[in-house]
Amino acid sequence: MPALNLKSDLANSDDLTTLMAGIGRRARAAARQMALAPAQTKDVALRTIAERLRASREVILRENARDVAAAKAAGQTQALIDRLTLDEKRLEGIAAAVEKIGALPDPVGRQLAAIERPNGLLIERVAVPLGVIGVIFESRPNVTADAGALCLKAGNAAILRAGSDSHRSAVAIAQAMSEGLAAAGLPADAIQIVPTRDRAAVGAMLAGLNGCVDVIVPRGGRGLVERVQSEARVPVFAHLDGICHVYVHGQADLDMARTVLLNSKMRRTGICGAAETLLVDQACAETHLAPLVTALLDAGCAVRGDAAVQAVDARVSAASEADWRTEYLDAVISARVVDGLDAAIDHIETNGSHHTDAIITANAEAAARFLAEVDSAIVTHNASTQFADGGEFGFGAEIGIATGRMHARGPVGVEQLTTFKYRVHGNGQTRPV
Amino acid sequence: MPALNLKSDLANSDDLTTLMAGIGRRARAAARQMALAPAQTKDVALRTIAERLRASREVILRENARDVAAAKAAGQTQALIDRLTLDEKRLEGIAAAVEKIGALPDPVGRQLAAIERPNGLLIERVAVPLGVIGVIFESRPNVTADAGALCLKAGNAAILRAGSDSHRSAVAIAQAMSEGLAAAGLPADAIQIVPTRDRAAVGAMLAGLNGCVDVIVPRGGRGLVERVQSEARVPVFAHLDGICHVYVHGQADLDMARTVLLNSKMRRTGICGAAETLLVDQACAETHLAPLVTALLDAGCAVRGDAAVQAVDARVSAASEADWRTEYLDAVISARVVDGLDAAIDHIETNGSHHTDAIITANAEAAARFLAEVDSAIVTHNASTQFADGGEFGFGAEIGIATGRMHARGPVGVEQLTTFKYRVHGNGQTRPV
Repeated sequence: MPALNLKSDLANSDDLTTLMAGIGRRARAAARQMALAPAQTKDVALRTIAERLRASREVILRENARDVAAAKAAGQTQALIDRLTLDEKRLEGIAAAVEKIGALPDPVGRQLAAIERPNGLLIERVAVPLGVIGVIFESRPNVTADAGALCLKAGNAAILRAGSDSHRSAVAIAQAMSEGLAAAGLPADAIQIVPTRDRAAVGAMLAGLNGCVDVIVPRGGRGLVERVQSEARVPVFAHLDGICHVYVHGQADLDMARTVLLNSKMRRTGICGAAETLLVDQACAETHLAPLVTALLDAGCAVRGDAAVQAVDARVSAASEADWRTEYLDAVISARVVDGLDAAIDHIETNGSHHTDAIITANAEAAARFLAEVDSAIVTHNASTQFADGGEFGFGAEIGIATGRMHARGPVGVEQLTTFKYRVHGNGQTRPV
Repeated sequence: MPALNLKSDLANSDDLTTLMAGIGRRARAAARQMALAPAQTKDVALRTIAERLRASREVILRENARDVAAAKAAGQTQALIDRLTLDEKRLEGIAAAVEKIGALPDPVGRQLAAIERPNGLLIERVAVPLGVIGVIFESRPNVTADAGALCLKAGNAAILRAGSDSHRSAVAIAQAMSEGLAAAGLPADAIQIVPTRDRAAVGAMLAGLNGCVDVIVPRGGRGLVERVQSEARVPVFAHLDGICHVYVHGQADLDMARTVLLNSKMRRTGICGAAETLLVDQACAETHLAPLVTALLDAGCAVRGDAAVQAVDARVSAASEADWRTEYLDAVISARVVDGLDAAIDHIETNGSHHTDAIITANAEAAARFLAEVDSAIVTHNASTQFADGGEFGFGAEIGIATGRMHARGPVGVEQLTTFKYRVHGNGQTRPV
């Protein structure tokens, strides 16, 4: 493996502008080649990338150790250092994930619609790659491989920008990926990593690199997503918050409600699909509220409630107005009693983030209304909110979850990294005057 | 019919901000109701709107006459006055178009995908309305009814902003539409027209009205589209240029090439799907170039060509570099000889606008490569570029043609005015740890 070409930070902003414009141009040129790559070639490339990641184990772990040492020296939190650290097992997991993406069906070239016209024209709507995808992430170096592989599978070029903390690890991983692309006869520039830590590089990507970026995917905390959403001049696939609700309807089975609620809140508390608010219907509060709240408390979850919830247990603290709009990402839940389905939907529409919301009920009509009227990317009936995940949806992998309304919504898998074109097949047809 | 409430221009920018914020809020509230409206109710509303447009003939034509008189007094071009002018026949056409949109299948609620998971979850991807659509148009008053009806059919709320010239006509049409909505039990605010001519209203819409606009559709000339694309902070469905090509491949049938070329260029010269450049392959130039160029000239089309094209006929003038990137929207075409399929594709990718491009050939392999490699919203084989139209695609109607890559591409019909959500049906499933 050649020496890593880790450029030092740039001397001035002209250099940065030139650097980023060049990355954009090369990405656009690579995207044109990638769009025409046969499925088999892309899959060979992904398998080769997995092999290169394994073969580059020593370099990647060495660079990662330098990232980790620098993060420790900088006094970063233990949580960040955990996210940052790679070991042999995690690296094998990264390589295996790339192979798994290679084994997915090719999303490019699918016929999405076929229209036969009375004049004999056959019009096909066919899936084609989106183009150039900019991915901006923070401390998890595995995003380099995951995101790069997903973009590649869908025939796109990727421009990856790692956080300062994971920069060396990400560069080492991206280099193995470019080598794998080249070995399969595909353009090495289909996966490029921004080689500088200069924060202005993010601004350049958000401005679209002179039309050379088609969409931006931020992967990281709220601060990053907020900056990207407010500054980007190109479309963004993202979610800012995951304020997910579990609504226990008056006709909910208590055991099911308890099981689904505990899973929605406590399976993992730090993911975007974790429940943050429990709504219990007045109609079943007498029988269901105390067992549900007690189960949460006993599982180690702090509960902030309205007066009725506080009355259940002395361990419940009072919820403030802000609690209904807070994503705790921790073992904390807000809880209240609502007076019927309409009140539940109204609470969710007023306070939620259009991510994932669940109803627990044995009443099919109430479930149908909830699924229709709650305007979230994912609505579930008698199922945990933690199913909000591309893998759980059968997409094989996801680049993130989007709460926007355009193009992609919910888990963003390889299909959502494509767009379409129309192919019109004729035999000399002209349009009548 | 009540008196028209035509507000005069506003005293100051605070008034405008308040006015526009209120329009946004009412649109968002109306969109929530519209999203749940049954197909039948929407269709009743569209039929009622058509009736109201006919019943309001006198008011609409009177307001239109005032617009026309003002445009004439302001010295506007005859072309603009033609676009602006309504008469009984045109108004009947507008009403009939609304009825036709009502008769289309409902795009909301379609099951786009169904995924059965091994754990028993059934996950549906279901079409839902986009939300609030802002439509900014210029002098054609019929856009009020067309665009409003398409948004309504897809369960959206529309905020319509007419050009200064068509303002009175548009307000009269929009009022008839709001009355039709209300008569069918739907929110009158689902179709709102901006009641002021103040140009700052456009800026407010492009800024997204505090999150109350989901997408902007500009309908008008290049200046409008350019401003919208550069200023909008929300997604835009539009095309800036329609620089469409007809490439006559070496194995093209001459008669078919001539027929399709003449139709692509001359059927109507002012529409975005009209051809602007002819590419003739070197391999058939000796036999095909002169007849094709002569046919264009004889049909009244000015031809600007390279040396080979100029050699055909003294009437051909020299093409400049700028000609290859010019949308004439007139009886003018640029023409050149290209050396093979790759050169043709390269010319189109370098100079085109990703709108609609055609290949004429009897060679299936060349056609397949052209359809795959030309990165345009619509690519046709042996068919006129003027088929670039939602009606011709069987969509019933279109709100415009998009050359962006996100969400909608090509003709934007009612289906493209929807997005989707995921409905997850379970029986108590939880996600394994």
